[in-house]
Amino acid sequence: MKIQKFDPQGFAYGVPCQGLFPWSGVAATPFGAMWCVVPPGQTIKPHRHHEGETYIVAQGRGVMAVGGERIEVGPGDAIFVDPFDLHALENPAAEGDLLFLAVYWEDMPLALASGEERAATRAGAAAPRRVWITATPPTPNGDLHVGHLSGPYLGADIYKRYLGMRGIEALYLTGADDHQSYVPLKGHRTGESPRQVADHFADEIEATFKEARIAVDHFARPKASPHHLPQVQELFTALWEKGALVAREAPTLWCESCRKYLFEAHVSGGCPHCGAGSDGNACEQCGWPNDCVNLVDPLCKYCGGPPTTRAVRRLYFPLAPYAADLKRFYGEVKMSDHLRTLCVQMLAKGLPEIAVSHPADWGIPVPFPGFEGQSIYVWLEMAPGFLAATQELLDRRGGGSWREGWQAEDQKLVQFFGFDNGYFHAVLFPALFLAYDPGIRLARAFVTNEFLRLDGAKFSTSRGHAIWGKELLARVPADVARFYLAWSGPEREQTNFTLAAMDETVARELVGGWQAWLGELGVKVGEEFGGIAPASGAWTENHEDFFLSLTQLAAEVGKAYEAESFSPQRAVRLLSELVRQARRFGEGEKHWGRFEAGREEWRNAIALELAAARALALLAAPVLPDFSLRLWQALGHPLDPTELAGPLTWETIPQFLPGGQRVSGLAGFEVTAGLAGSVEPVTAGREAVLA
Amino acid sequence: MKIQKFDPQGFAYGVPCQGLFPWSGVAATPFGAMWCVVPPGQTIKPHRHHEGETYIVAQGRGVMAVGGERIEVGPGDAIFVDPFDLHALENPAAEGDLLFLAVYWEDMPLALASGEERAATRAGAAAPRRVWITATPPTPNGDLHVGHLSGPYLGADIYKRYLGMRGIEALYLTGADDHQSYVPLKGHRTGESPRQVADHFADEIEATFKEARIAVDHFARPKASPHHLPQVQELFTALWEKGALVAREAPTLWCESCRKYLFEAHVSGGCPHCGAGSDGNACEQCGWPNDCVNLVDPLCKYCGGPPTTRAVRRLYFPLAPYAADLKRFYGEVKMSDHLRTLCVQMLAKGLPEIAVSHPADWGIPVPFPGFEGQSIYVWLEMAPGFLAATQELLDRRGGGSWREGWQAEDQKLVQFFGFDNGYFHAVLFPALFLAYDPGIRLARAFVTNEFLRLDGAKFSTSRGHAIWGKELLARVPADVARFYLAWSGPEREQTNFTLAAMDETVARELVGGWQAWLGELGVKVGEEFGGIAPASGAWTENHEDFFLSLTQLAAEVGKAYEAESFSPQRAVRLLSELVRQARRFGEGEKHWGRFEAGREEWRNAIALELAAARALALLAAPVLPDFSLRLWQALGHPLDPTELAGPLTWETIPQFLPGGQRVSGLAGFEVTAGLAGSVEPVTAGREAVLA
Repeated sequence: MKIQKFDPQGFAYGVPCQGLFPWSGVAATPFGAMWCVVPPGQTIKPHRHHEGETYIVAQGRGVMAVGGERIEVGPGDAIFVDPFDLHALENPAAEGDLLFLAVYWEDMPLALASGEERAATRAGAAAPRRVWITATPPTPNGDLHVGHLSGPYLGADIYKRYLGMRGIEALYLTGADDHQSYVPLKGHRTGESPRQVADHFADEIEATFKEARIAVDHFARPKASPHHLPQVQELFTALWEKGALVAREAPTLWCESCRKYLFEAHVSGGCPHCGAGSDGNACEQCGWPNDCVNLVDPLCKYCGGPPTTRAVRRLYFPLAPYAADLKRFYGEVKMSDHLRTLCVQMLAKGLPEIAVSHPADWGIPVPFPGFEGQSIYVWLEMAPGFLAATQELLDRRGGGSWREGWQAEDQKLVQFFGFDNGYFHAVLFPALFLAYDPGIRLARAFVTNEFLRLDGAKFSTSRGHAIWGKELLARVPADVARFYLAWSGPEREQTNFTLAAMDETVARELVGGWQAWLGELGVKVGEEFGGIAPASGAWTENHEDFFLSLTQLAAEVGKAYEAESFSPQRAVRLLSELVRQARRFGEGEKHWGRFEAGREEWRNAIALELAAARALALLAAPVLPDFSLRLWQALGHPLDPTELAGPLTWETIPQFLPGGQRVSGLAGFEVTAGLAGSVEPVTAGREAVLA
Repeated sequence: MKIQKFDPQGFAYGVPCQGLFPWSGVAATPFGAMWCVVPPGQTIKPHRHHEGETYIVAQGRGVMAVGGERIEVGPGDAIFVDPFDLHALENPAAEGDLLFLAVYWEDMPLALASGEERAATRAGAAAPRRVWITATPPTPNGDLHVGHLSGPYLGADIYKRYLGMRGIEALYLTGADDHQSYVPLKGHRTGESPRQVADHFADEIEATFKEARIAVDHFARPKASPHHLPQVQELFTALWEKGALVAREAPTLWCESCRKYLFEAHVSGGCPHCGAGSDGNACEQCGWPNDCVNLVDPLCKYCGGPPTTRAVRRLYFPLAPYAADLKRFYGEVKMSDHLRTLCVQMLAKGLPEIAVSHPADWGIPVPFPGFEGQSIYVWLEMAPGFLAATQELLDRRGGGSWREGWQAEDQKLVQFFGFDNGYFHAVLFPALFLAYDPGIRLARAFVTNEFLRLDGAKFSTSRGHAIWGKELLARVPADVARFYLAWSGPEREQTNFTLAAMDETVARELVGGWQAWLGELGVKVGEEFGGIAPASGAWTENHEDFFLSLTQLAAEVGKAYEAESFSPQRAVRLLSELVRQARRFGEGEKHWGRFEAGREEWRNAIALELAAARALALLAAPVLPDFSLRLWQALGHPLDPTELAGPLTWETIPQFLPGGQRVSGLAGFEVTAGLAGSVEPVTAGREAVLA
């Protein structure tokens, strides 16, 4: 007799289980089945998968949740779960196991159809009227290096430009995080006041943004803002009055020789979560917050000596009350799985209480009695800082209050940040907003990046292992820098920046590919059509194939610019593929130009190639705005050069140029105009495109 | 008053016309309109375009053709033409113009929908049961160089392997074109008999195919074939008896000092059509046939001296009677626009009479009296040669006649050839088949290639400017050679082969990309799952995105292997994109592996990454058969290594590996196994993938 006795020794989705089918050595069934046991008071972890599944309840009673529905179930009930439906089974009883048999089978076509349907549903969500885009304000203790640029700042700019072309108002907020404790630390080393340091580097950062063509709508400067301090203190007081903050006396780090409380920038040690070297309050490596006193072997960053501890009565923000709301929020917001693992783990471990006041004279003072000499935690400050920045922007644009902006249904918030700031954006800020004003609509998408390395090692300002933004932008035009940072950006994984790889990629793709094609096309239009875009003519089947291919590429590029599937890496690769296909098409079609009876096909082929160039100008604009405007002009469109990207809209792509339009600027067109000899142009040989 | 008097000075689609709208300086209308005049006995050229259009007949009567329909029309009739419908208007009257107004307007979404519908219709055509694939038999006067390999021979093999995986019987015919006059010319230079030359190089060519893993089903050797000579003579006699051949006395080239009639290989001069240097009978450069006597300044290739002419009574095959059938055929067969221009021009010029017998002792003798000492034209021989080769193949496979094969509705013929052989395949052979047996189903698709250049110049056996197939295959494994020939193949344009570009591309894509990813995946599966493929688990939204992306990539790769949209260039680029996406996905998902509550997501992520590796094995198999089999094995699939690509089928892709399958060969997997140090492996840094 072949028998498997009931013996749930396995563990799946958080509960004991026993696999029955396929039955090893006995039956290779086309389905799987397992017994699952939900102990009293527990639930099988809510999850989704591609298999179809049926739960058949054998013993006990429970609550089955599928999608948004919840139904009481008992013995004999069989529940069908569609592929990818989120489902869970809870045993709310005080005693007695709930036993059910899970039967599941793979039906790939069904799963795929379901997946495509879900993707279509997601894509079909109503377009927002206005999108708020934030990129974490950098600390003004230094200028931006290439690692910063390649992260949230370029990404947010690309996204903003894309939305603008789609006719959606997109407002990009960032600024300088003046009150970071890294600012006085820098001043201590250079002999300047913290304010001098902050103002100086905020100026530098703003200048770097300008050089990189990063067009922020509001660059917040907390020290100079009329709204920042009042908004921060207002929110802080409101939290205190609502009981969202609690006062606790707890040990803090104290450096006896410096006579200084140590937190954030002031201290370094081992991260209590991952063991990596970390500063106070949060670990750059794993993203987890810490309490400073739990750092391993902490050392004072001012004197290098080990601190002692002192008990101080400070304010804390307990995060646990927001756990259920955050969990729901994580089910709705689009984020990377790296960030999701952090959220899931923090929720699973139990959300901590976070110290939100520190004994310090740099920062915004706690605005109520009992905490004299304490400043509000700078990362708490950032959440109301976004609201204050919004208010400043709206004031400048003629009115409205941040509340309307951040509460309205037709607005959408998308936040760009490095994974090392993930805890702040995904846990702290949403909890603060939930506590302060549940009417605030939380982010719909988080777009994160990982670290960029330089020549294989971490960027480091102190060790001088960095390329500064301004250095790169002095070497190559902004468009070239933006192209390569997009091409090599650390979107999901750490990537490595080398100047050699940049030069090689730019020579191969932009010079050997884009520029060579546009130049060849310009010569053809000049020599054979007198520099005038021909009207479309007779279509061959090859013409149709190319037209469909352009249409598909345009749709895919658009998808790569959407926050929910944001990938400039993919976008620029698709642009290079468009160029490759267009060039091939042009080469294969040139023979129509050689005899009279082929003139209508020849005209149509050139009109299609010009439509591809027009598509390139539009599709590239979010990443290479100057290139796109120049190409747009070269294609004969009238242009007001003061209006940045204004005339470029994400309309029907591809589309023909108006027949008869003068195309005068294409022959000799330089994709990398202004490239100061640092990149050797590749002779326009075929191998350059193909290699 | 603003007026345009009737004055059709323009010319469109072969008839006089006058543009009315948009009216320059008066009205920028959203539609165009023009008067068109069809003179008696003429027709407006059949054409298609993306605009919607209406023809409104003003004067005269005519026959309107839209798609397959023909309707008589007269004054006042208005005919609507859908975007992309082929249409024409004929004036069959003996006198009197037909005057109509054409009104047309652009509706891009409509045009696009129509284009997509057409593409879907084409794609949905019933899959054939069996596909005959031919690649023009090479001349056995030398071994194959890289230019040959990169052309029809590799392409036909890739297509055959793809069809095999789809479960469609695909039979690949090629061989040696023994009777080419280049064979005795070679023998004259080496002192060997023509038969010795032919046999020797046919052996070499077959050996090169084997080394390149080009798996032909039948390699025809006319001299050794039991069917070849009888089939050629049978067809030739049948044509003669039907009156399809005519005897004409006409001048031929004669070398007095060599006592030799000059044709084909025996003579060179200037092409009468394009002026390029050309041998007799057909020009490699422009593809047009010539009659030898019309070569400019012909010279004997044996002695180098100028020939005289002599009148000889030979057999001719007049092509003109097949013009209408060929025209219809060109509307149905898929071909490149380069080839289409040749067909259109030859039809427009009027199809010539082609000499199909030459005074020569090498070749197949004319089998009826009156033409003693003459051999059948070797390019005529090739058409029945394919039928004889088919018969030999069927004999070996146990029966059937070539007639069943080439006449059955559920069979499909696809021909691979270089553009320089375009006239033979697209004009001569179809005309011969139409004359011999109208039941023969002509080709459904022609897949052509252009010339490959070497280091910027034309391949030349005589100047030693060539890389021989065997040289390349001694330097790199067959898969690597196939990969790079696919990557850089001259599909629509001449491309340039350099060893340096090959090394760089292989290092970047195969070593730095494919191999690095598979190795990393192998290490993960080994270290974290004990070398066992995990069953799928819980899906995150990112998992779904990746799964959909794999599905789309697989569909696109399939499209790039279909004859109607054949592009190994595109296929291998899509494979590299699959690898890039999979590697990124893997990096972004690794964090699930670091905590207990993430185990089901972690399992699913690894299962998906393995599904991507499985997809790569399948999708790459037509181009890199050895790699694919080794990867298939490394993924734990049982394998009979004697059965070439047998176990790899184009089933649902992507698909999970069976949970529990041992994946032991992935860590340390070498994509380029056997690569003998000629390509420097790139350290598996991120930059290699991204650069």
